[in-house]
Amino acid sequence: MSKKITGIAASDGIGIAKAYRLVEPDLSFEKATIEDTSAETNRLHAALDTSVEELQLIRDTAQANLGEDEAAVFDAHIAILSDPEMIGQIEAKIKDDHQNAEQALSEVTQQFAEMLAAMTDNAYMQERAGDVRDVAKRALSHLLGKSLPNPALIDEPVIVISHDLTPSDTAQMNQRYVKGFLTDLGGRTSHSAIMSRTLEIPAVVGSEIATETVSDGDLIILNGLDGFAIDNPTDDEIRTYQAEAERYETDKAEWAKLKSEPSVSKNGQHFEIAANIGTPDDVQGALDAGAEGIGLMRSEFLYMDTDKLPSEDDQFEAYKTVVEKMAGKPVTIRTMDIGGDKHLPYLTLPEEMNPFLGYRAIRISLDQETIFRPQVRALLRASHYGQLRIMFPMIATLNEFRRAKAIVQDEMTNLKQEGIPFDEEIKMGIMVEIPASAVLADQFAKEVDFFSIGTNDLIQYTFAADRGNEQVSYLYQPYNPALLRLIKHTIDASHKEGKFTAMCGEMAGDQTAVPLLMGMGLDEFSMSSSSILKTRSLMKKLDTTQLQPLVDQALNDCDTCEEVEALVKKTVKVD
Amino acid sequence: MSKKITGIAASDGIGIAKAYRLVEPDLSFEKATIEDTSAETNRLHAALDTSVEELQLIRDTAQANLGEDEAAVFDAHIAILSDPEMIGQIEAKIKDDHQNAEQALSEVTQQFAEMLAAMTDNAYMQERAGDVRDVAKRALSHLLGKSLPNPALIDEPVIVISHDLTPSDTAQMNQRYVKGFLTDLGGRTSHSAIMSRTLEIPAVVGSEIATETVSDGDLIILNGLDGFAIDNPTDDEIRTYQAEAERYETDKAEWAKLKSEPSVSKNGQHFEIAANIGTPDDVQGALDAGAEGIGLMRSEFLYMDTDKLPSEDDQFEAYKTVVEKMAGKPVTIRTMDIGGDKHLPYLTLPEEMNPFLGYRAIRISLDQETIFRPQVRALLRASHYGQLRIMFPMIATLNEFRRAKAIVQDEMTNLKQEGIPFDEEIKMGIMVEIPASAVLADQFAKEVDFFSIGTNDLIQYTFAADRGNEQVSYLYQPYNPALLRLIKHTIDASHKEGKFTAMCGEMAGDQTAVPLLMGMGLDEFSMSSSSILKTRSLMKKLDTTQLQPLVDQALNDCDTCEEVEALVKKTVKVD
Repeated sequence: MSKKITGIAASDGIGIAKAYRLVEPDLSFEKATIEDTSAETNRLHAALDTSVEELQLIRDTAQANLGEDEAAVFDAHIAILSDPEMIGQIEAKIKDDHQNAEQALSEVTQQFAEMLAAMTDNAYMQERAGDVRDVAKRALSHLLGKSLPNPALIDEPVIVISHDLTPSDTAQMNQRYVKGFLTDLGGRTSHSAIMSRTLEIPAVVGSEIATETVSDGDLIILNGLDGFAIDNPTDDEIRTYQAEAERYETDKAEWAKLKSEPSVSKNGQHFEIAANIGTPDDVQGALDAGAEGIGLMRSEFLYMDTDKLPSEDDQFEAYKTVVEKMAGKPVTIRTMDIGGDKHLPYLTLPEEMNPFLGYRAIRISLDQETIFRPQVRALLRASHYGQLRIMFPMIATLNEFRRAKAIVQDEMTNLKQEGIPFDEEIKMGIMVEIPASAVLADQFAKEVDFFSIGTNDLIQYTFAADRGNEQVSYLYQPYNPALLRLIKHTIDASHKEGKFTAMCGEMAGDQTAVPLLMGMGLDEFSMSSSSILKTRSLMKKLDTTQLQPLVDQALNDCDTCEEVEALVKKTVKVD
Repeated sequence: MSKKITGIAASDGIGIAKAYRLVEPDLSFEKATIEDTSAETNRLHAALDTSVEELQLIRDTAQANLGEDEAAVFDAHIAILSDPEMIGQIEAKIKDDHQNAEQALSEVTQQFAEMLAAMTDNAYMQERAGDVRDVAKRALSHLLGKSLPNPALIDEPVIVISHDLTPSDTAQMNQRYVKGFLTDLGGRTSHSAIMSRTLEIPAVVGSEIATETVSDGDLIILNGLDGFAIDNPTDDEIRTYQAEAERYETDKAEWAKLKSEPSVSKNGQHFEIAANIGTPDDVQGALDAGAEGIGLMRSEFLYMDTDKLPSEDDQFEAYKTVVEKMAGKPVTIRTMDIGGDKHLPYLTLPEEMNPFLGYRAIRISLDQETIFRPQVRALLRASHYGQLRIMFPMIATLNEFRRAKAIVQDEMTNLKQEGIPFDEEIKMGIMVEIPASAVLADQFAKEVDFFSIGTNDLIQYTFAADRGNEQVSYLYQPYNPALLRLIKHTIDASHKEGKFTAMCGEMAGDQTAVPLLMGMGLDEFSMSSSSILKTRSLMKKLDTTQLQPLVDQALNDCDTCEEVEALVKKTVKVD
């Protein structure tokens, strides 16, 4: 029977395919004493053999579909399954201690994993601990007569149903076959949501009930535009959403024509649409999607994919690559935002009760100049090769900005003495993501070169609600007049001083928010590459002279998020 | 040699006395195998006997100085030390397993403590787990030839030096002898700071280095007015601060005369000074200190000192006691603010990554009406006996207030049908402690009866800095123009709609903030009872017509917290 499952629209598009449940089976077991230890040893080997066969199949499929890098992971898994030392110890526990195979396997593999994990001076061996655990899980599933989901083996169109999605889950899938994601957990800014937008796969997250409702093989309509799925749809429903899906594809084809066009409103007002990127590898995607600049390059990747602080030269090369590829288009690079939910193996940070309200981003940079100065120097050196802007995250007070700016100026003096070229007119701005800096934007505007509003954090602090916490997700209110006022005050303040304001949070690509932001005169909209063309298309259809009164009404007459959303939907007709 | 230790002024007054280090010794030990087990058993018994003797002395002193309740704790400790079951098991580990006494004692007491702690259906036995751990620590210290600090034995004037202070530390002290607290940790709003103000004991917190700098018995000058201590002062310094201490005592005597006077500025503008209280027991102290009302009664005590949800009747009795004692003066009671850093044994709350941005206060109340409705009914019933106002904490959106108000109105209808009397004109207001509600105060003011600004949380969210986190304590900026603007906007918005604004955070009693708040026209200042008379005295000396331009200057010309503080100190002359 057709059943509707509602959730949060996390990535555009409509997918219709069979359900693939990416849900781990229950692998609990009882410890037991075994009489016939040789039968038990045979049982162990049967499970190990099945695991190896399965891994070989996965390995071959992964190599064909995803390439050698993804496949290599499974080579490591197969190697572990033939480790004589480990197998010998498991056998001994069965033979000498009369343990059942499940218990013997778990104890020994756990010991091996812990031993590897304890090798803190060898990152390679530490990572192998995870492989041992993965392999143990696989062998255990076969001992228990169950099987793990193997996303690498997906070879027909599916909608993936899961509790949540991790980057390693998706790395194993041939994305060509994945027509949609439907998860229990997550919100619009969760990792799974951001990932699906990057992969351009329709997604509905935060449904709460997907995994308990949907059975493997059910036909699913996944509507990532409106945020719902239909389990076992009727023929009528299938027809309706097939038509919708086609219309969406037509729209996308229309949008593609806008790739090289400027972003202008119906009445000719120009805006800039830029891309948010995470690594230099993302630049090509941004250019392909028609980005007019990089509005936010996160620099955390340099700090996270390594076992020590990145050197000044490593950073310089990465930044230079990006500005050169962008060939004179503006590239705004944010200094590191470590802390909060992001930790580094080589940097000891305090255990904090509320990490989002703690020691992170610029607070660390100003406190530990040995981390900050090499980044500043790398940014300055790269600025010689294109149009680079420096942006400081989590600025709450003017004194913080002044101290950060003074360090940049200090390093400018040093570089000059060393004869190293850099852009002497380099622009320095701040993320407006803490309420204090939005409220005081008029004072900040006298000293910064630009603002970039980070709505994900700004919403979180303005409503005192952790955006990762499901219990308070109702307080993620991008259209609440309180938030809109902070945004408008920031934009107005920058214009009054002849500066500009960008936005690099989720909201910049939100189709309900865009008309309001255009009405407020936001200068730059920076978003996931996948949202750029859709947004440019929307802009072309809107007349800003009609949007300004809409903004006034939303800010002064409306008093809730819901009321503003209804007002925009009622007023803005884009067809 | 005289050495100055700077910290945060946390409680007014100057104390001069010898240092008492309330610092636990290092109780680590090595596990060892013992040959002569009977000598080891004797060593165990010697340590147990010494512990009992010590506890008896503490018990007697505590009874004489602090009363029977405090002394009873030590009876429980003595009883544990003679538990034959536990002692028998420790002896067995020494005799049979050849463990050293330290190891045997630790293992057995830990097992007992864990067993007790696991009795989740018996709160009394669960609490005994802590006693077992305390006793084990004491016996272990004697085995190691060390001794624990015993604050109950303090019998001469001292300045207590400690890493931090817990309520149980202070419960054991005869406060008559404690002339000051000097701690490594804490800020103006930490528990230790709030406690010292309640006890009216001078305190300097957050010195970072007190315990490593000061030796037991050093002479200490503790200046809680200016936030520093002097270790081993010179004779000159002693004379200077004795004179300062006397002047402060004279001031206090002057302030005492203001107890029954109204709170008016020099030019005759009336303000209201109220008290923040935690339990009905605090009402008398508030009246004695000259409070014109209760600006904040926290209701958490009803939920925390119990092993189940408080009944409607229990709550009613507590609220009624307060409003009756206040005899018609206004009493603002805040509905429960559980969650965040406060947990309840009988209420399962989710584990949260950022509890201050999580499921707490009104968010729980609106989600779990079975908790909220009995509190609402109890408040309404108590409103019949005096002037009671209901205040909702952590309101971020108008819809939250509307839902809370609708529940109150619903219970009004129910009470009417049941024929139970209540104040039909009861006022309902909100805490303004989340930036969103401050920014949207003009819309809120149309619907609420009053605001009460909770500055502790408002500062925390406005600057995205956990007030309990030392690493970001520099962002506790009560005079930052960003915060002052939110406060002024809230006050102005309430007045425009004929409503009033109170403040019940730390800032309301801050002598630098008070002139600014008077200039903004804040209606009610609610604070620790100990700050009331000092604030009333300050108000009498200030002319609000001179404070209004000061506010304009602070909000529009200043751009940092430091600049505003300097401006106020330069402009406001109170002598």
